[in-house]
Amino acid sequence: MVEQAHLREVGPRDGLQMVGTILPAERKIDWCRRTVAAGLHRVEVTSFVAPSVVPQFADAAEVARVAAAVLGIEASALAPNLKGAERAIASGVAAVNFVMSASEAHNLANVRRSRTQSLEEFARIVVHRDAVASGRVLLSGCIATSFGCTIAGAVPEADVLEIAERYLAIGADELIIADTVGYANPAQVRGLMSRILSIAGDRPVTCHFHDTRGLGLANVVSALEAGVRCFDTSLAGLGGCPFAPGASGNIDTEDTAYLLESLGFDTGVDIAALLELRRDVESWLPGEQFGGNIAGAGLPKTYRPAALAAR
Amino acid sequence: MVEQAHLREVGPRDGLQMVGTILPAERKIDWCRRTVAAGLHRVEVTSFVAPSVVPQFADAAEVARVAAAVLGIEASALAPNLKGAERAIASGVAAVNFVMSASEAHNLANVRRSRTQSLEEFARIVVHRDAVASGRVLLSGCIATSFGCTIAGAVPEADVLEIAERYLAIGADELIIADTVGYANPAQVRGLMSRILSIAGDRPVTCHFHDTRGLGLANVVSALEAGVRCFDTSLAGLGGCPFAPGASGNIDTEDTAYLLESLGFDTGVDIAALLELRRDVESWLPGEQFGGNIAGAGLPKTYRPAALAAR
Repeated sequence: MVEQAHLREVGPRDGLQMVGTILPAERKIDWCRRTVAAGLHRVEVTSFVAPSVVPQFADAAEVARVAAAVLGIEASALAPNLKGAERAIASGVAAVNFVMSASEAHNLANVRRSRTQSLEEFARIVVHRDAVASGRVLLSGCIATSFGCTIAGAVPEADVLEIAERYLAIGADELIIADTVGYANPAQVRGLMSRILSIAGDRPVTCHFHDTRGLGLANVVSALEAGVRCFDTSLAGLGGCPFAPGASGNIDTEDTAYLLESLGFDTGVDIAALLELRRDVESWLPGEQFGGNIAGAGLPKTYRPAALAAR
Repeated sequence: MVEQAHLREVGPRDGLQMVGTILPAERKIDWCRRTVAAGLHRVEVTSFVAPSVVPQFADAAEVARVAAAVLGIEASALAPNLKGAERAIASGVAAVNFVMSASEAHNLANVRRSRTQSLEEFARIVVHRDAVASGRVLLSGCIATSFGCTIAGAVPEADVLEIAERYLAIGADELIIADTVGYANPAQVRGLMSRILSIAGDRPVTCHFHDTRGLGLANVVSALEAGVRCFDTSLAGLGGCPFAPGASGNIDTEDTAYLLESLGFDTGVDIAALLELRRDVESWLPGEQFGGNIAGAGLPKTYRPAALAAR
């Protein structure tokens, strides 16, 4: 029996948040479709932020609707507030990802709310979901800056654990623990994720790492050791931070799949198909920096997917 | 008590092996000098290969002599054969690093000897060292392609362990286990390094990882967990593989120091001084690709060297 691990592609959302090119909806949908064809069934397809804030997502409703209805993927969408969540749920996505920061200063800067106000907003989203889409739409509670904050510096682990507990008590179906600014190190990941998993019980927990300081994949290994089996990743490592020019973004989908398969976890991912998709996504986004190593170096001669290696 | 971990800078050797610019000896010596000033006392300063094979190292004797005599560093030099080792020892370096491959095919391609012939050559080097520099020059036995080979594919762990045992029996003072082609994964590293450490007893063991496929720092974490405390690294991640254009090279010195310090290991390294040196090394090597993340992203606001954090 080969144990499974899961990737959720966040490129069409986190990856596109900062790029210079507004990608047409049909290309975003093509990206989602081909991600599913490559074996990745969970895709964060868009963000329901106000288009005035991020013009890239002015087509959120269209992308989400097509992705959810036509492509048959486990489409999720980010929502920063009740209004976004209402639009997301109306579009038909399978999951809505609400985001708040463990750092009070970051939360105020990012969504202009205190953490208490964010949790109250999440409670309103749960009420709305229960009223209009009970049993059909899952609500994920994401905790940004869980490993540190560029504004406040250190983030106490107790704050992250308390928000996780509040999320679960209010009704989150899943937790996403995010290293938004790339501060996490493997020892910190192992400690925090062990405690998060014991709080979460049987509710799924996903890690969302950035590779800003090169520790992204080392952090994945530590999270695996703590028991995490779900990871947010972005094709071509898209998703750089605007405050660190030249810094890499989300952990790279292809490289993370390679790591997980090498460690014996079946991801179901066809890395060659991802690399083909990557070439197209690169051509759609001229002038951007792309990350990841497998695209340049190729898979080792010794590589075998975990499901084959175990036979 | 803060536990220590050690980096050995291999940029002036492994990093320069492939670059297009022949760096003048005074710049190489400046690189060594400033590496020591930044707290890294072990430096592989050059390679005693035939200048006809690698013209970059035509100045090996001069660089090694100055580095060893003037700079007071624990200078090591690579030697592919007895002749190179004789020249290295005559130059006054503290350690000579002999290299052979665990893969027979790679060893034949790289040094045109069978593995048995390489071990015989190492035995001749030990005899020579004992005759001319007993107690003054350490001999390191490096095992290249320990985690896989671009020619042969998989390399049996038993082959690596056997070479390690032979090296130690012949008289190696230290072992260096190298992932020459960037095939290693964290599970493999933990398994092999645990067994190597138990064979080595109290003789030091260094890991030499390349970041070709993005797993370099994850492999460092696994090696630490197995008990390894010494790592070869290269400033700016120099040292790409000629067979994988665009692939990254050795694990990056600055990023590895950041990882080790974040995990609570005192390296003695001044990362800011390394970044200043890196800027100069980049300017000396126009047209090269450089790796590493800390140079672009900066240290986290939360960063404190392990020795300070433990106070």
